Amino acid sequence: MAVHAIVLAGGAGTRFWPASRNARPKQLLPLVGDETLLAATVSRIAKLVPPERVVIATGAHLLDATRSAVPAVPAENLLAEPAARNTAPAIAWATAVIAARDPEALCMVLPSDHFIAMPAAFEACVEHALEGARRGFLTTLGIRPTRPETGFGYIELGAEQGASLFEAARFVEKPSLAVAEDYVASGKFLWNAGMFFYAARDMLAAVREHLPDVAEKADACARSPASLATVFPTMPSVSIDKGVMEKAKRVAVVPGDFGWSDLGSWQSAWELSPKDDAENVLPDGSVAIDAHGNLVWDHAQSKRTYALVGVSNLVVVETEDAVLIVPRERAQDVRLAVERLKALGSKRI
Amino acid sequence: MAVHAIVLAGGAGTRFWPASRNARPKQLLPLVGDETLLAATVSRIAKLVPPERVVIATGAHLLDATRSAVPAVPAENLLAEPAARNTAPAIAWATAVIAARDPEALCMVLPSDHFIAMPAAFEACVEHALEGARRGFLTTLGIRPTRPETGFGYIELGAEQGASLFEAARFVEKPSLAVAEDYVASGKFLWNAGMFFYAARDMLAAVREHLPDVAEKADACARSPASLATVFPTMPSVSIDKGVMEKAKRVAVVPGDFGWSDLGSWQSAWELSPKDDAENVLPDGSVAIDAHGNLVWDHAQSKRTYALVGVSNLVVVETEDAVLIVPRERAQDVRLAVERLKALGSKRI
Repeated sequence: MAVHAIVLAGGAGTRFWPASRNARPKQLLPLVGDETLLAATVSRIAKLVPPERVVIATGAHLLDATRSAVPAVPAENLLAEPAARNTAPAIAWATAVIAARDPEALCMVLPSDHFIAMPAAFEACVEHALEGARRGFLTTLGIRPTRPETGFGYIELGAEQGASLFEAARFVEKPSLAVAEDYVASGKFLWNAGMFFYAARDMLAAVREHLPDVAEKADACARSPASLATVFPTMPSVSIDKGVMEKAKRVAVVPGDFGWSDLGSWQSAWELSPKDDAENVLPDGSVAIDAHGNLVWDHAQSKRTYALVGVSNLVVVETEDAVLIVPRERAQDVRLAVERLKALGSKRI
Repeated sequence: MAVHAIVLAGGAGTRFWPASRNARPKQLLPLVGDETLLAATVSRIAKLVPPERVVIATGAHLLDATRSAVPAVPAENLLAEPAARNTAPAIAWATAVIAARDPEALCMVLPSDHFIAMPAAFEACVEHALEGARRGFLTTLGIRPTRPETGFGYIELGAEQGASLFEAARFVEKPSLAVAEDYVASGKFLWNAGMFFYAARDMLAAVREHLPDVAEKADACARSPASLATVFPTMPSVSIDKGVMEKAKRVAVVPGDFGWSDLGSWQSAWELSPKDDAENVLPDGSVAIDAHGNLVWDHAQSKRTYALVGVSNLVVVETEDAVLIVPRERAQDVRLAVERLKALGSKRI
């Protein structure tokens, strides 16, 4: 049972504006380190899955940029969704494509825009999850929560099923703060990081059972690329979590603790980047005088000299056509700027 | 007695870094409004002095940039100092050049890097000062102080000599704060703004009396441009205030109140620029959300979109090769960044 990967790289989003744009979403940025998040996702699993067995689901408008970001992945492995339909249609389609090539395939589904600080620990979890998949479980990784985050879904740990493998008793969507606090205190809930491991035939059977319309159309798209443009957009927009995982019978979770971050804002990029003695993250050649905790992100790598004097905890993002300045603690409010620009009819979003 | 102008445009300085550089000093920047400060200085007196009668003293390394800034001034009116020697040598030389062309000339000496908010009021003062010059006084304008500034020289008002014309009882160099406070309270002291009005022959006589070495060498430079490179640098570095005005006999002052500013820092540029409802000074197309009192200076007029979210009272200066971010109240500390860059061997100063 060869292992294949499905990398979900269709995401859009404004939280990293102005570096991220409609045509250059987060996964195509090197937010931590030198590689784009997408390339890092593919590199991270390279020992288990060679590029020829990596399938990337992305948006049609992102196809060229995605290809440039991961040139080792064969062009025929890039699946261009003609419309965004959430994760269930994309995963069903990609799984059908893989199953047509390799009916015995084991698949892992990975988001392309997350950060993992401890790749070896991640790999160990993946091995456990693949073992779950071999045993017929739709298996997910659950991140041990470090705070009562209300922006994530949670998975409740059930009965132990093997080494590091537990029944997934329940999938819960974004909870209230009080509920999230209870979850974290209980030690029985994990964050749902959107990673899934399964035998292709098990997932296809589960989709057929719980989302028969999606199963049929995904199969049509896999068999006949010509029908993609007309069929794919008719699928419902539904997540694999809600559409399949919550309903399927043999669902397992592997608890993991490998320095995962969803990189939710410039604040996270600052947290995860190497810093100087004054906690600044600055381009080479910068000058910081009485300046602490700042992030300067020079997207175009302009090699300009950044001089920060007496300013602290700022995020400064410079691109070829836009500049953002915001306090780190207000990094989420980038969306306000994007909304304003949208209202003004700006193309720079 | 035709009126000629001597515009002093040799200044260097780091207070407007990174917009200002060794090769692009303050007077060559459009710090308030669309014109460079130098061009504004020449425009402001155009009713009284046509460009053909404007002589500009500048540094040899600034000659081309200066010519571009004031193309209406004839090339032969640009005097390039081979070395910086403070104001007395430059004024003596320029006055000798003008006197050779027009022995009856009245001269006005104007710094090129100041701002004047009320040009009509300025013009009225100039008329009074020129009348003083016609009557044989070395005449200066004195600015009514609005604060106990310790960075300026002061002039003490003496006996009235005519309409708006007073004897200059005393020139005082930068005083202590206590002394400056007394000066302001007394109502008898004015700021020395470095503007002088005189008959060319009176100034040349005064220089001959008080700085005979400068008089002789300035005369040599005016007569023989070939000797400039060898003679000019041998002059002492001395200001016209200390070298001549403090010692000369018939010295007068015209009190003025015409919205003068020496534009000492980015803080002054912000104060003097038109602001939006949130007290921001921003390039066109910028977006300010919960952002107040900021100055964004886009030197290269890049037409980029500046988005400020939740930041207040910042100065942001963007040039082709350097970026400065500093709180407005610390605008003077720009020099710290320049010193650091100098120590690092940066060429971007």
